[in-house]
Amino acid sequence: MPDLKTILHIDYPIIQAPMLGVTSPEMVAAVSNAGALGSLPLGGLSAERARQLIRETKKLTDRPFAVNLFAHAPAERPNINDINLMQEFLHELCMEYNIPHQVENADNFQFHYYEELTDVIIAEKLPVVSFTFGMLNAEILGSLKANAAILIGTATSAAEAKALEQHGADVIAVQGIEAGGHRGSFLSEDTLPQVGLFSLLPQIADEVNLPLLAAGGIYNSRTVKAAFALGASGIQVGSIFITAEESAASKVYKEAVLHAHDTSTTLTQAFSGRWARGIQNEFMRRMDRKGLNIPYYTIQNQLMSGIRAYAQKNDIPDFVALWAGQSAGKSTGGSTHEIIARFISMLPR
Amino acid sequence: MPDLKTILHIDYPIIQAPMLGVTSPEMVAAVSNAGALGSLPLGGLSAERARQLIRETKKLTDRPFAVNLFAHAPAERPNINDINLMQEFLHELCMEYNIPHQVENADNFQFHYYEELTDVIIAEKLPVVSFTFGMLNAEILGSLKANAAILIGTATSAAEAKALEQHGADVIAVQGIEAGGHRGSFLSEDTLPQVGLFSLLPQIADEVNLPLLAAGGIYNSRTVKAAFALGASGIQVGSIFITAEESAASKVYKEAVLHAHDTSTTLTQAFSGRWARGIQNEFMRRMDRKGLNIPYYTIQNQLMSGIRAYAQKNDIPDFVALWAGQSAGKSTGGSTHEIIARFISMLPR
Repeated sequence: MPDLKTILHIDYPIIQAPMLGVTSPEMVAAVSNAGALGSLPLGGLSAERARQLIRETKKLTDRPFAVNLFAHAPAERPNINDINLMQEFLHELCMEYNIPHQVENADNFQFHYYEELTDVIIAEKLPVVSFTFGMLNAEILGSLKANAAILIGTATSAAEAKALEQHGADVIAVQGIEAGGHRGSFLSEDTLPQVGLFSLLPQIADEVNLPLLAAGGIYNSRTVKAAFALGASGIQVGSIFITAEESAASKVYKEAVLHAHDTSTTLTQAFSGRWARGIQNEFMRRMDRKGLNIPYYTIQNQLMSGIRAYAQKNDIPDFVALWAGQSAGKSTGGSTHEIIARFISMLPR
Repeated sequence: MPDLKTILHIDYPIIQAPMLGVTSPEMVAAVSNAGALGSLPLGGLSAERARQLIRETKKLTDRPFAVNLFAHAPAERPNINDINLMQEFLHELCMEYNIPHQVENADNFQFHYYEELTDVIIAEKLPVVSFTFGMLNAEILGSLKANAAILIGTATSAAEAKALEQHGADVIAVQGIEAGGHRGSFLSEDTLPQVGLFSLLPQIADEVNLPLLAAGGIYNSRTVKAAFALGASGIQVGSIFITAEESAASKVYKEAVLHAHDTSTTLTQAFSGRWARGIQNEFMRRMDRKGLNIPYYTIQNQLMSGIRAYAQKNDIPDFVALWAGQSAGKSTGGSTHEIIARFISMLPR
């Protein structure tokens, strides 16, 4: 099996997880400058915005960093009735909470798929491309490989890990149920895989012959040691960076993470239509109680985008997506450099 | 902190998890005879039946073993309408699947609470008492302690672990979301804690100053090593014993476990009214789709007992409770002695 540090050109087998809305170019650069691997999230962004962020990051570091893509197919033709019922309910909620809201025409929704970003990634010669929500299409995967990019896929089950290996992934990020943010699941039609990292990682290590990254719940030296014991070649750390000085998370989001405990988070489809783990808030509870069919990603994501932006800007924690993992409450703030240095010191010698 | 092996009078820090309907006196004795700790499940049994099982086990081993209790309060006065709707639905299902079924009078339901067992446990001088679903009442806890029993409580969250420590537990079994069978949760009113062992165990180790047992997902040397790395003083292994020769599990249950994979199980209230993890089958799916209010434990357990007994006897896997954890598919059968010897060989030196 190839050595993770060699193929990723890093000194320490630690990856900062890509977190859209949290990870800034400054965060990515601070991680990579310390000898670990920063990850710049590009999912859903335009080619223009992606190029701008990549260049900003490059100004701050000469070291390699990864970019992250959402490798899903476009949403199915949406059920208009579900969309209308959802918009009605969101409108009621916004009236109740004094959030400006305008019912939108779903026909006008636009979303940037990862295919649009391939040219930028190749032109910018990015050495590592990670992806979630599925597999890259064969043509794009071929182009990236031809340009010497190392590909990191995301698996939430042994079947997904095997599919990624067969498809040509070089490394697999094993996302335990503990992880914050969106589930990377892409194979199961009916039931979402919800396997704990403690069971999932060794079962994937039994079946797949690629370097594995442990993702979910990592926060101290016990968890770092356990990740390697379970079969990982590296660790991917996300939630602990939310409260970093370089994080783009809003004040209310950071506060919620600092006050979280082990049972504060839950899985929800309420914000985007895809399952994701976040700190439970009133919006999630109200959506649960209402029991509407939630239009699938990316539709619900678009229906919510104005509300989330307003809530974030105006510090209304009950309508912000407080993505966080089950160990997020162990966050302490501080600079990205301090956080990554602490994880480096925890690595087994 | 007291040494786990010393206080439990064992040579190896491995506990065989109590599994009602699976664990036999022969299994308990084989584990204890190997120098680890067998656990005899007594939850819901009469004092007479408990005494009989304890004496059968004692005939097979001179070594210490644990007994396990369901430490919950009696169910609230049930909602008769919910019970009637449930019985109607179960009757329809049984007609469809040719299972004999008689609607029962819920007023006649009887359940043996753990209070009835205290005298037997003290008279039989059992050295270790483990419990789940709550905390022992103070009087019983005092009597057991006065008789030198070591008490093992079950926690599914850091708050539960702290409550058990304050209450006087000597050891805490930390039940990760990976574990098979019933969740031990007892503090949360609305949301079931669903924390992965990888996040839960170190967070409890941060806050509680008692020896901890890692429970859920343990199957190979990687998981054994990781359990200790995460802060455990011992491991509690359950699902891997289901397919043992000494297991009381039916043939269809053992077959289902041998064929399980990482995503085969799910949490359900369908069989007993309490949340439990088992291999998904048709009964669980039908109950889910029907969406009825499920009468709380122990009512639903009693409504289902005849159906489950018939299904077990007649090898109808879709109506048997196939309790199993997320690593259960790694089972290999063999004797209890072979299985426990394998785990002993995996212990860190």
